[in-house]
Amino acid sequence: MKRIAVLTSGGDAPGMNAAIRSVVRVGIAEGLEVYGVEQGYAGLIAGRFVPMTVRSVGGIIGLGGTVLGSARCPEFRTEEGRRKAIEQMQAHGIDGLVVIGGGGSQTGSLLLHRMGFPVAGVASTIDNDLYGFDLTLGVDTALNTALESLDRIRSTASSHHRAFLVEVMGRDCGYLALMTALAGGAEVVVVPEVDVDPDAVARELREAYERGKSHAIVVVAEGARYNAAAMAEHFRERRDEVGFELRMTVLGHVQRGGTPTAFDRLLGTRAGAMAVKLLVEGRHGHIAGWLEGKVQALPLEEVVGKKRPLEPDLLSLAEVLAQ
Amino acid sequence: MKRIAVLTSGGDAPGMNAAIRSVVRVGIAEGLEVYGVEQGYAGLIAGRFVPMTVRSVGGIIGLGGTVLGSARCPEFRTEEGRRKAIEQMQAHGIDGLVVIGGGGSQTGSLLLHRMGFPVAGVASTIDNDLYGFDLTLGVDTALNTALESLDRIRSTASSHHRAFLVEVMGRDCGYLALMTALAGGAEVVVVPEVDVDPDAVARELREAYERGKSHAIVVVAEGARYNAAAMAEHFRERRDEVGFELRMTVLGHVQRGGTPTAFDRLLGTRAGAMAVKLLVEGRHGHIAGWLEGKVQALPLEEVVGKKRPLEPDLLSLAEVLAQ
Amino acid sequence: MKRIAVLTSGGDAPGMNAAIRSVVRVGIAEGLEVYGVEQGYAGLIAGRFVPMTVRSVGGIIGLGGTVLGSARCPEFRTEEGRRKAIEQMQAHGIDGLVVIGGGGSQTGSLLLHRMGFPVAGVASTIDNDLYGFDLTLGVDTALNTALESLDRIRSTASSHHRAFLVEVMGRDCGYLALMTALAGGAEVVVVPEVDVDPDAVARELREAYERGKSHAIVVVAEGARYNAAAMAEHFRERRDEVGFELRMTVLGHVQRGGTPTAFDRLLGTRAGAMAVKLLVEGRHGHIAGWLEGKVQALPLEEVVGKKRPLEPDLLSLAEVLAQ
Amino acid sequence: MKRIAVLTSGGDAPGMNAAIRSVVRVGIAEGLEVYGVEQGYAGLIAGRFVPMTVRSVGGIIGLGGTVLGSARCPEFRTEEGRRKAIEQMQAHGIDGLVVIGGGGSQTGSLLLHRMGFPVAGVASTIDNDLYGFDLTLGVDTALNTALESLDRIRSTASSHHRAFLVEVMGRDCGYLALMTALAGGAEVVVVPEVDVDPDAVARELREAYERGKSHAIVVVAEGARYNAAAMAEHFRERRDEVGFELRMTVLGHVQRGGTPTAFDRLLGTRAGAMAVKLLVEGRHGHIAGWLEGKVQALPLEEVVGKKRPLEPDLLSLAEVLAQ
Repeated sequence: MKRIAVLTSGGDAPGMNAAIRSVVRVGIAEGLEVYGVEQGYAGLIAGRFVPMTVRSVGGIIGLGGTVLGSARCPEFRTEEGRRKAIEQMQAHGIDGLVVIGGGGSQTGSLLLHRMGFPVAGVASTIDNDLYGFDLTLGVDTALNTALESLDRIRSTASSHHRAFLVEVMGRDCGYLALMTALAGGAEVVVVPEVDVDPDAVARELREAYERGKSHAIVVVAEGARYNAAAMAEHFRERRDEVGFELRMTVLGHVQRGGTPTAFDRLLGTRAGAMAVKLLVEGRHGHIAGWLEGKVQALPLEEVVGKKRPLEPDLLSLAEVLAQ
Repeated sequence: MKRIAVLTSGGDAPGMNAAIRSVVRVGIAEGLEVYGVEQGYAGLIAGRFVPMTVRSVGGIIGLGGTVLGSARCPEFRTEEGRRKAIEQMQAHGIDGLVVIGGGGSQTGSLLLHRMGFPVAGVASTIDNDLYGFDLTLGVDTALNTALESLDRIRSTASSHHRAFLVEVMGRDCGYLALMTALAGGAEVVVVPEVDVDPDAVARELREAYERGKSHAIVVVAEGARYNAAAMAEHFRERRDEVGFELRMTVLGHVQRGGTPTAFDRLLGTRAGAMAVKLLVEGRHGHIAGWLEGKVQALPLEEVVGKKRPLEPDLLSLAEVLAQ
Repeated sequence: MKRIAVLTSGGDAPGMNAAIRSVVRVGIAEGLEVYGVEQGYAGLIAGRFVPMTVRSVGGIIGLGGTVLGSARCPEFRTEEGRRKAIEQMQAHGIDGLVVIGGGGSQTGSLLLHRMGFPVAGVASTIDNDLYGFDLTLGVDTALNTALESLDRIRSTASSHHRAFLVEVMGRDCGYLALMTALAGGAEVVVVPEVDVDPDAVARELREAYERGKSHAIVVVAEGARYNAAAMAEHFRERRDEVGFELRMTVLGHVQRGGTPTAFDRLLGTRAGAMAVKLLVEGRHGHIAGWLEGKVQALPLEEVVGKKRPLEPDLLSLAEVLAQ
Repeated sequence: MKRIAVLTSGGDAPGMNAAIRSVVRVGIAEGLEVYGVEQGYAGLIAGRFVPMTVRSVGGIIGLGGTVLGSARCPEFRTEEGRRKAIEQMQAHGIDGLVVIGGGGSQTGSLLLHRMGFPVAGVASTIDNDLYGFDLTLGVDTALNTALESLDRIRSTASSHHRAFLVEVMGRDCGYLALMTALAGGAEVVVVPEVDVDPDAVARELREAYERGKSHAIVVVAEGARYNAAAMAEHFRERRDEVGFELRMTVLGHVQRGGTPTAFDRLLGTRAGAMAVKLLVEGRHGHIAGWLEGKVQALPLEEVVGKKRPLEPDLLSLAEVLAQ
């Protein structure tokens, strides 16, 4: 292996730049040339390669987003598209690729691997829905951002004796919602994995109201059957069943951005370094991520296409603590 | 004057607790007894008075929201309601009242003043829509919170070559939107005071897109003719006119909460101290706020019911800088 | 077991309040009465017990420090002192104790255990020097605080073409220094575990200077043979060997305080819950902490009195990346 | 006027980049060419001019420090040095200069003005020691950073019943110390403008200790007769007179760096714009800064070489509130 490329794909996640920096610097230290690919798989197909030096990743470890950019690429879902991508890499003498991204992006890298191209992944998505890993790159920052917003909302909720529905990211996976609720001391949490009846939520709010609590917070994952807007709509005619006056906030894209936490910078750094090692050592088709307290590699075949389950213990703990 | 009370009213604002603390400690230093009123004017009518000591406001200067609570009170809009409030205060031997709040709340304090009850106001609302003052309590914190969110959104916007509509608070007043846009380097700002054509916004985005900008941010005040949702709806069918892919975020109640900035703690502290002095010195019916670089008092009669104009210079400057 | 007590001991760590809250609420949910002990072991000997309710820990999950207080207690190092402590607990009908603290504090809890009193620990110290665990309570917050300071220093260092010696906490353990250096992209890191020659540091700075870097950051653990002050002193006469103009900052107690991160709130919550379970289930003399991606219990006998080694891989990685 | 240059000089201050951006963009909008000068007056003498475009200041509004760099320049204090600087500007066709900096730097710009070269200043220093202005660029950010550190220290101080000496920047001017103390609810503040007896500080701490306070904070300006280290030394033998156990933290360069607050971004933006207008309109030898709630220009002759007095009202208020 002489020349590798690195791309970021899918939704951006804080820490991607730490991973890029690490791939570049560790790659160069291993004697490789390293290219950056602009705009994810779309740039791969279009041959948008940029030579990277030790200097070109200076000062990016603390930046949110991804300096390489990301984009959707329907063409890459076709074999034709992927063949073009491989041809572009071969034309530029690139014989290994690091893909930093989540589930959809790693489906792509697995398909490249199956076509025989040396690939290594870095598990990166703020949804934490990647099977096999404990934590993916970006989750810790998104969680802290959501928590900071929750802390802010609590002070205004408490001043006005209100209940708040706070919607956090998570299309299929309630991890972010559950952890935000636990760390923020929320009264109720609503996740996609559990089929929650909005009337049960109303009852819990009513009980908190009658226990004399000054406010209540419900954290809702965007992918729950009733998201925040649906639940607010459901409660509109049922004010008396809830007790509190109700407000809603959708945290939205704010969760995705910003300076990465120490954990995400370290995870990006270490997973990026391992991805290079995987390519150099010929362990192709693997993905590096956080598992059991350290960076580990799993075969893409084992990771892609499966669903990460929620820890049921934590759901019960959230209920015990919400008093 | 021997005994005064203090209440917070209307939407809570960061810094209200600094003002409460200052009213209590300065009041006691002036030889007064000080009572807190729970839940604003509603608590005033209901006689919810709590004796305050130097200790009871210890450690609150850095807390968001208001430890006294706030609530809506339609009854206080009737003369009957206000008469009850005055009777309650007289029954408790209270001969002066400090009202910490914005436009609606100070209408209430003006009416009490007209009925002959000694009142002093503290100008406090995150909307900065109070006539006569440069800055009201809470604006600086809300602005910094909105700006931090904008900074976060920029990193994700830039990674995906997107335009974002970011809605900030401000029902009648575009101050927060304009300042957030200027400080955040936004490309476009939409305020209630100017009748903005959404097609003109589309043209500006299109131009930024064609100049090769990696992203664009439009800051929209919630009270603009087209708020963020209306504008997103308008653009839905006009994707080509905009250039960028579009996303929307409503910052919402997050802006209201959180630890107050140094400025808001200092403003609350100084305005609270002045409110006590106004009562003690017999300058009743005045309101303390930030004007021309220091805390000053204005007659409530001059402040209430008028509209704070936006500085047109700043709007032009925002346009010059958005490049 | 019917009645338990909880105390915090040693240096305070962010997340201790989350642990206290969890011990109280999980304890009550398990049917126990829970008492808080004020001022650590000193309060235990003096019998300063406070009954705790679900309400008395409301709103503390986000607070830094410890609401129970902490204090040094030389008396507890004597058998006499520990006997008094046990008598106090017996007199109050307390039949189990949760000790939240680091190495020194857990030596105390082990000694109580050896005297036959049921004890459970929660591994908590910002130094991360507790043998057996990956991360102790408070480390994540301290690390993020140190990192934020490093980010600030970098901008001023870069503006003035200076090198900075930044001293972080860590008397025997370089974990915090190493992680801060890695996450902050520092040029050099100096830890107690490695005997670093200050002239070697000077050479690295000189090389960075000659490569044209705009600045350089050296992260120094307080317990290194040459701490920041000693190194600055050593360099005073050797300005030419360093290249850069040199400045020094000791981060100090700032690292210890502040709102805990999501991770520390979750760790405190989960470890506190496990400590209660350990007492209830009769697994006495264990300590709960973060290991291999989850909360686990280890026997105090295995943890106390040993030294946590630094991961040598990370030291090498820090060198590769510092370019 | 056709071509202007802009430089930053002296200690860097958050918001300098907002000012640079504004000078560049407003200058270009006014039809001027704008050059940046690297490394302050040293770069001016050496002719280190860089052409600036609308693009070259994109994305810098939120960065700490100064992208143009700053450096000491003893040569500029000589008339010879200043003559060289003017010759360099003339050789590059530059007929106006914007100097962003504090007292020492504006002495330089006044001397250039006296030599007939068109100059405009932007009042910028985190010490807030510039005569004539209410607030200089960078003060608001430095104050919020110091306050955040104080908040952190308070939680650890309170957990251990300790008193802390916290040293903030300010060589001749106690503004930052006084405001940090007021906003942070400190018990005592020590500024250079008032000759404080350390035994009086000890007495205040002793009284707080005896009133049963859980902790006490003393904010000390670095330029006070007894700075933090001197006061700690003085107290070493007088433990009993203080009551509390004592700790010390010097905040240091952390205060200088970091993302500027909204206020500093807006002030830099508006003062930079005014500096360009001053040059264009022929009002040479003026300096733009914050005064009475807006950006105003003062003649350099009136500003340079004088001392900004501390508001005595605020010192008394700090005493009243510290209870």
